[in-house]
Amino acid sequence: MQTTLLRLSCPDKIGLLARITNLVAHQGGNLKEVAQFTDPKDGWFFTRMEIETATLRNGLEALRTVIAPLAQELGAEWSLRPAEARPKVVLMVSKLGHCLADLLWRWRSGELAFDIPCVISNHETLRPFAEREGIPFHWVPVTPQNRREAFAEMEALWTSLGADLVVLARYMQILPTEICERWPSRLMNIHHSFLPSFVGANPYQRAYFRGVKLIGATCHYATADLDEGPIIEQEVVRVEHYHSEEDLLRLGRDCERLALARGLRYHLAERVLVRGNRTTVFRD
Amino acid sequence: MQTTLLRLSCPDKIGLLARITNLVAHQGGNLKEVAQFTDPKDGWFFTRMEIETATLRNGLEALRTVIAPLAQELGAEWSLRPAEARPKVVLMVSKLGHCLADLLWRWRSGELAFDIPCVISNHETLRPFAEREGIPFHWVPVTPQNRREAFAEMEALWTSLGADLVVLARYMQILPTEICERWPSRLMNIHHSFLPSFVGANPYQRAYFRGVKLIGATCHYATADLDEGPIIEQEVVRVEHYHSEEDLLRLGRDCERLALARGLRYHLAERVLVRGNRTTVFRD
Amino acid sequence: MQTTLLRLSCPDKIGLLARITNLVAHQGGNLKEVAQFTDPKDGWFFTRMEIETATLRNGLEALRTVIAPLAQELGAEWSLRPAEARPKVVLMVSKLGHCLADLLWRWRSGELAFDIPCVISNHETLRPFAEREGIPFHWVPVTPQNRREAFAEMEALWTSLGADLVVLARYMQILPTEICERWPSRLMNIHHSFLPSFVGANPYQRAYFRGVKLIGATCHYATADLDEGPIIEQEVVRVEHYHSEEDLLRLGRDCERLALARGLRYHLAERVLVRGNRTTVFRD
Amino acid sequence: MQTTLLRLSCPDKIGLLARITNLVAHQGGNLKEVAQFTDPKDGWFFTRMEIETATLRNGLEALRTVIAPLAQELGAEWSLRPAEARPKVVLMVSKLGHCLADLLWRWRSGELAFDIPCVISNHETLRPFAEREGIPFHWVPVTPQNRREAFAEMEALWTSLGADLVVLARYMQILPTEICERWPSRLMNIHHSFLPSFVGANPYQRAYFRGVKLIGATCHYATADLDEGPIIEQEVVRVEHYHSEEDLLRLGRDCERLALARGLRYHLAERVLVRGNRTTVFRD
Repeated sequence: MQTTLLRLSCPDKIGLLARITNLVAHQGGNLKEVAQFTDPKDGWFFTRMEIETATLRNGLEALRTVIAPLAQELGAEWSLRPAEARPKVVLMVSKLGHCLADLLWRWRSGELAFDIPCVISNHETLRPFAEREGIPFHWVPVTPQNRREAFAEMEALWTSLGADLVVLARYMQILPTEICERWPSRLMNIHHSFLPSFVGANPYQRAYFRGVKLIGATCHYATADLDEGPIIEQEVVRVEHYHSEEDLLRLGRDCERLALARGLRYHLAERVLVRGNRTTVFRD
Repeated sequence: MQTTLLRLSCPDKIGLLARITNLVAHQGGNLKEVAQFTDPKDGWFFTRMEIETATLRNGLEALRTVIAPLAQELGAEWSLRPAEARPKVVLMVSKLGHCLADLLWRWRSGELAFDIPCVISNHETLRPFAEREGIPFHWVPVTPQNRREAFAEMEALWTSLGADLVVLARYMQILPTEICERWPSRLMNIHHSFLPSFVGANPYQRAYFRGVKLIGATCHYATADLDEGPIIEQEVVRVEHYHSEEDLLRLGRDCERLALARGLRYHLAERVLVRGNRTTVFRD
Repeated sequence: MQTTLLRLSCPDKIGLLARITNLVAHQGGNLKEVAQFTDPKDGWFFTRMEIETATLRNGLEALRTVIAPLAQELGAEWSLRPAEARPKVVLMVSKLGHCLADLLWRWRSGELAFDIPCVISNHETLRPFAEREGIPFHWVPVTPQNRREAFAEMEALWTSLGADLVVLARYMQILPTEICERWPSRLMNIHHSFLPSFVGANPYQRAYFRGVKLIGATCHYATADLDEGPIIEQEVVRVEHYHSEEDLLRLGRDCERLALARGLRYHLAERVLVRGNRTTVFRD
Repeated sequence: MQTTLLRLSCPDKIGLLARITNLVAHQGGNLKEVAQFTDPKDGWFFTRMEIETATLRNGLEALRTVIAPLAQELGAEWSLRPAEARPKVVLMVSKLGHCLADLLWRWRSGELAFDIPCVISNHETLRPFAEREGIPFHWVPVTPQNRREAFAEMEALWTSLGADLVVLARYMQILPTEICERWPSRLMNIHHSFLPSFVGANPYQRAYFRGVKLIGATCHYATADLDEGPIIEQEVVRVEHYHSEEDLLRLGRDCERLALARGLRYHLAERVLVRGNRTTVFRD
């Protein structure tokens, strides 16, 4: 059954949900799933709707035509697309392959529906894992000298391949500020700590020395402020005194995989709505 | 800010959410929170709305008047009430006081908003804990001989006190079938296992002998089929080989407290919608 | 069955566990539970043993006599006591009663075995909850002007009452550095965040604004560095975009109660061994 | 650093740990990790030790020589082996590849240390995933007619390849009773429910219809009684009313992967000691 995804956020008003559901109903659209949240703190309205495409008398584009003026009136940020459209997701990696392997399995098995135009890395290590799946692999080394050019090359790749999203799947380089600003809510990172604990480098080592009893991972959108972007998903696991730093790395890998896979899942299904530094995530 | 709670379920139809939100909007009602779920399996529609009471131009009863005919047309099960109305909840206990103590604390501190017309028990053990809070305590011993009369007496108490809900907070007696049938979705039980594991007596002992690595508790509505009623909430905790049966009891108590408190919270806020043996719980 | 608790830590050496267990065996002591951990990072040895007291041919004090010279030779920090000795625990509170209520219930029901010489608070709010349990309540107001005297008065109380441990059960005042230094590993605090996230004031508010997807609580020993002491236990709970700051407070309360109760349990049973800023916790 | 693993269980006696640690100490063995548990219920002693191999004056075999007579005297079940020996693990699969993919990644990356003599399946589906890793793949179709011969063929394979362990990684066939009996604690299964809930077929479907709020997976040793074998590890995940049967399958896959990977990890490191239907798992 084909599905149309509507995602919309705007300042709150009385009657908003009624107006939108009316528009959908007048097109014959059957609502399969509706999520709505009004943030009482700053009076903001968020909604996401799954509409049975076959019931839309005049199709998705006709629905777009009637929603557009309302969205403009409301000052809304919104999107409307077929759920079946597979977003193009570029994967960025360094040498650690656990997140890549996990995403490739979910992609290959169809659990997550997206296309992978390429994998990019600053090392050759993971080339075989991409290429054996038939995915182009680009090696773009990054040095203090070529940083600017290297990232320009990568961003050009993203653009030329029509990337809808770029996933930093344990890509251990810090992205230039301007790139982060040009790709808002389209750069997804997995940080290997339970943010805001252990922002920055070597979080597992620091977790070990702090003696915490839980470690975790955070999936968030990258912004110019390192590790400060809107959080999409977090996962934690209990640790004990007998766990070495190496054990924390091992236990953390499972957290990273799960948090990233869930965050990506929510993003692909238009379930993440960002406002400022907070996300509304209509989880499934 | 006063709030009106609307809860409604019925067979699904195109345009349902639009019709209901229109009715509310026409009364001026500002929707603070809307939850909606359509069960694709059997085509059933569930919704719960929080409406800002002050914005209802003609008040809650006027809204009831316009919703009633729609609900009838739809064959809906529904309710509409002020969130501020405090349901009357009778607490039933035996000798174990941990769930009672937990509920009394949440009630006393205002975390949960309800009134307690009385505590009923088949033992005198917990009388002081109720009475020191100013809550009447009724001792109704149950023996094989007086079972029928004892439960008749208790049900009469519930009725005369206007109980909206009866909570079996580790009340270790099995209720007569007829009573379960007369109080559908109004008898809440906490079972000391992660159902459907260990239905029936001595679940912790059986968990111990089975050697499970997780134990739990289940909050559910009591039905004529013991431990088979609709599940509202469950909680689990990890156990290890070194945990004795007594340890399982101890660890389980925390699960029981949490699962019961959450289940009661959802019920009090009209967040639980029952259909057959499944619940839709719009959690908060 | 009476039990003797031995707790010992020292620099690691080959044959250490053999030497200690030999000493115990030569006294006839039956080991009911042995936990041992060697920290490979800094070569430190930690052990905790539960010995069946009745099997000690010459009793606990004779065992102490044979262990003392070995401990001295090893440069060990150690303790030996009957498990049945009930430590004296002073409870410090402000206005929030959830941790107090939880501890009082576990104390009253016998789940945790300790004595409460008194409850101390800078407010009168919780007096009735202590007094109805027959526990003396001391009101010691703290102002910027009387801080020094107030804490001197409280520390004098602790000392005169023979406190083995002081629990800051949501006591919202910062303790003077000298007091923290005089009571190492004997001041237990519950911090209302998942440390090291949100060190300091208003952690739930900051968690809300950061948009985290999990919040938590941390039970730790207080040290001169605020919120930097050795962590004993942590607990987390998932939160969603629709949870307000007030919801975080509510959800956090259950984390705080559980983390504090567990931390206290481990401490009372001599299960916590501190070295530097890390704890070895032989959990049960 | 090379490590020797000692695992031993027997009826409890006073002085047992002292005798064993003495034997190790007399060989010069440095104990890196000691886990000990005495089951008070049936008086059984379990221990596992990690010994620094380089410190054993006369090597591992000399240690075996001195432990053997003690073990015989005690009626102990025991093993002694270098941690570096890589057990041979045959993987059995059907059509679902998520557990296989997960184990292959952990194997390939070195997170888990074992050899895979072959993958066996009743379908050809997963052949490419094994073969691209250089692992032989055997297709052994099973029909009602050839069941006996098929399993005889497979068991012959296990034996001829010197399998130390056989992992049923979502192998959807029930093994013949005699085979289960011939391979006690050497057949590891992952069951797709939180046992003892939903023993048998279609657990996710049954979980859906029962309306549980948590689903899970169980890693256990296979025995003649289907799904009744000793449990090694369990994992659960919260589910909601809006999760379809298909969603449960998806969420459950992550539980299955984690529970199986952990169970296998514990087994490979000699951390699982079985007695009757219960396991002692000295987790790491």
